[in-house]
Amino acid sequence: MAKPLDHLLDIASLDDDQIHSLLRMARQIKSEPGRFRNLCSGRLMINLFYESSTRTRFSFEIAAKRLGMDVVNFTAAGSSVSKGETLLDSFRTLAAMAPDIIVVRHPDDGAAAGLAAVAHSGLRVVNAGDGCHAHPSQAVLDALTLSEHFEDFSQLRILIAGDLHHSRVTRSDVEMLRRLGAGEIRLAAPEPLRPGPETARGTIQFDDLDRAIEGVDVVMMLRIQHERQSGLDLPSAEDYHRAWGLNAERLSRAAPGCRVMHPGPMNRGVEISSEVADGPQSLILEQVANGVFARMSILLSLLGGEMPARSGTQA
Amino acid sequence: MAKPLDHLLDIASLDDDQIHSLLRMARQIKSEPGRFRNLCSGRLMINLFYESSTRTRFSFEIAAKRLGMDVVNFTAAGSSVSKGETLLDSFRTLAAMAPDIIVVRHPDDGAAAGLAAVAHSGLRVVNAGDGCHAHPSQAVLDALTLSEHFEDFSQLRILIAGDLHHSRVTRSDVEMLRRLGAGEIRLAAPEPLRPGPETARGTIQFDDLDRAIEGVDVVMMLRIQHERQSGLDLPSAEDYHRAWGLNAERLSRAAPGCRVMHPGPMNRGVEISSEVADGPQSLILEQVANGVFARMSILLSLLGGEMPARSGTQA
Amino acid sequence: MAKPLDHLLDIASLDDDQIHSLLRMARQIKSEPGRFRNLCSGRLMINLFYESSTRTRFSFEIAAKRLGMDVVNFTAAGSSVSKGETLLDSFRTLAAMAPDIIVVRHPDDGAAAGLAAVAHSGLRVVNAGDGCHAHPSQAVLDALTLSEHFEDFSQLRILIAGDLHHSRVTRSDVEMLRRLGAGEIRLAAPEPLRPGPETARGTIQFDDLDRAIEGVDVVMMLRIQHERQSGLDLPSAEDYHRAWGLNAERLSRAAPGCRVMHPGPMNRGVEISSEVADGPQSLILEQVANGVFARMSILLSLLGGEMPARSGTQA
Repeated sequence: MAKPLDHLLDIASLDDDQIHSLLRMARQIKSEPGRFRNLCSGRLMINLFYESSTRTRFSFEIAAKRLGMDVVNFTAAGSSVSKGETLLDSFRTLAAMAPDIIVVRHPDDGAAAGLAAVAHSGLRVVNAGDGCHAHPSQAVLDALTLSEHFEDFSQLRILIAGDLHHSRVTRSDVEMLRRLGAGEIRLAAPEPLRPGPETARGTIQFDDLDRAIEGVDVVMMLRIQHERQSGLDLPSAEDYHRAWGLNAERLSRAAPGCRVMHPGPMNRGVEISSEVADGPQSLILEQVANGVFARMSILLSLLGGEMPARSGTQA
Repeated sequence: MAKPLDHLLDIASLDDDQIHSLLRMARQIKSEPGRFRNLCSGRLMINLFYESSTRTRFSFEIAAKRLGMDVVNFTAAGSSVSKGETLLDSFRTLAAMAPDIIVVRHPDDGAAAGLAAVAHSGLRVVNAGDGCHAHPSQAVLDALTLSEHFEDFSQLRILIAGDLHHSRVTRSDVEMLRRLGAGEIRLAAPEPLRPGPETARGTIQFDDLDRAIEGVDVVMMLRIQHERQSGLDLPSAEDYHRAWGLNAERLSRAAPGCRVMHPGPMNRGVEISSEVADGPQSLILEQVANGVFARMSILLSLLGGEMPARSGTQA
Repeated sequence: MAKPLDHLLDIASLDDDQIHSLLRMARQIKSEPGRFRNLCSGRLMINLFYESSTRTRFSFEIAAKRLGMDVVNFTAAGSSVSKGETLLDSFRTLAAMAPDIIVVRHPDDGAAAGLAAVAHSGLRVVNAGDGCHAHPSQAVLDALTLSEHFEDFSQLRILIAGDLHHSRVTRSDVEMLRRLGAGEIRLAAPEPLRPGPETARGTIQFDDLDRAIEGVDVVMMLRIQHERQSGLDLPSAEDYHRAWGLNAERLSRAAPGCRVMHPGPMNRGVEISSEVADGPQSLILEQVANGVFARMSILLSLLGGEMPARSGTQA
């Protein structure tokens, strides 16, 4: 029985039991979704999003509704942000309305942790992406997806390639892969987009995609986060694709049947070709589908200490 | 028993049984709304809207909620569209989250059909307006409204007037009226806004509203869709109203008690005077009210094959 | 037993029984929230917001969902407003979809009353803020909050300070305080932001915060509503804070333990210092929390005549 989750801020704060419990419950939900319907009825989740999002916001909203929760969506546009209210005040205001969970996306590193630090007991905060720092629910869904295709992570060679410098996904995924004992984690990025030292710890780094991809079982591509660039001298989309895009020819250098992942949104023809994105080796839509189950597991775990059915559902 | 609906893309794709079944069920829902509450509980509908909308989006949302469905609203603003994601990728992403129905509005002709073509089995797509092509749920609600006022469609003379060139409503309504055997369908539009040949088939065309309106039982007015004009040389609002606006004097040329319809939103003082819009012959708000019942019928029909209560509800 | 509420447009339209009944039910809901869950299931509320809002819109939405209502959110952006539709037509369109309650925020004084005047019987309109006129649900939540800290309003000395000229909150709060027999109502505002004569009736006016605050039991601070200023010659934030900001030193002139209120959103360092806003005398987050209970009471009262459980819940 894992220690209850107070908040979900990053993967590093989870102990191994909590990680395995999240993955186990996600698989259970996926296998019997009907059993979990309305388990959290009467609970309230607020989506507090200061950045654009499709898949993450919708995935949390759908996960919550599948569990019977009420959901309210805050976006910075059309809110009191336009009247000069700070993040902290908006959060405290919403928290005073007694939601059970607030899911936060914000452009600043550490935003979710800062809010969790002031949350009253009983309120859980989920980090749905904070700047370049962490995106832990993405790491849970990616691990869930990988675990359905690879039984023994110690044999797994995985490459993450693209804009690693700005990637909270990479940071959370690398931490998750380390914790699950992945055999080999490779990172490949063009010069100005190299990962920082914390992300890079325990990985093998490459500055050339063709060499990096050789023999890997999984390659995860990342888009260039133009919204986080400032003054970087980046190549054109065509030049980037030539050097750093994943196409069928390049994919053929990986291990046979190598799986392709992408957290989305994709920029087709830039970091990935359509042929690969839509090809038989792609797990991209499985990732999205698993996102709902991963987030149902996260929400249930956060609310779980107080739910009668929980010990049963985790058996 | 009508053939189950896979998607609702346009009126032309429906067979006569399906059309009559949709209208019959809408009338039944309207007469006993309580019986249908929560019939689709646990089902998920996504509104995927790439154009502004009040009545259509709200009408679908309310229809779904009246049936107990969960609803999630996607608008292009604030989504991954701003990160360069294509319509097809946004759709596939949302589809992977396992909704039962996706309702799409998009400025491109054929957008909904394109999405339906890639939808996995079990997912139903509803066209809530695609460019100048079709708006089938509007045609269902208009037919429902007409059927409450006219028993015998073969005696019905109806005029549709205004910006017919850009009007997906006209195209779907004309097809619906033909299929229901309307006695006479007249179309009237100023020169640059004439309908295309597919819309015009089986209708009588006029270039003068005063002559077109003579003796009709119903007149449906359409606003000028400024958002679809490009470089057309249009008259001022005043000039347009003088030549093409429906006012009480002009309405008096129609058959006594002639009913007035408008799919909204109205530009008062342009294509219609307030006197007429708010007058006793106006069915405009009945159309809106019927929109919810028509869409409940559409949603139920799309989900129906799998619903135990359905044979009962359609008896 | 109070007379049923038709609409909630302003405090002046309520009789004393209705005011006391709203407050009594809000306290009851707060003490046993579980008893009220799903009491309004199947009912529909539409939020019709033409101005930015966080706390009011969310508070109504959460209140409605706590009662089991369905909620649909209209914001002017992305709606038919962009196609030239008037407020009245948007309202009539939404009203035709048969909601039970429409909650309206609009920049024009009297907007909600204008809509209530055309609403069909059975539809209730709630004014969630109309221009500089009224914000009655704020007055209910403020009275609820005060009543938890002060038993005898006749002994209560309260100061409202800041931008009183543009403040619908002040107008509704002053009316509410008068009706509840508050001992002394003081108003303090800089020259260009003085309240109008209707707000000022029965109050004591000051043009200096230091004198106004002397000996009061409660001080309520208001932000400058920059969105309603036009061409006023206002001081800088620093100068404003020096003359009109509430800080600890100034607060020490009030009665010992003087409570601090603010309807939010706050502009910290302008009309209020963080030391005071977050200090032990602040009721600001209690106001927000009570907002949900006050609005549940309002919604229940509006729907109450038709609800079986009501006589019980009001006992």
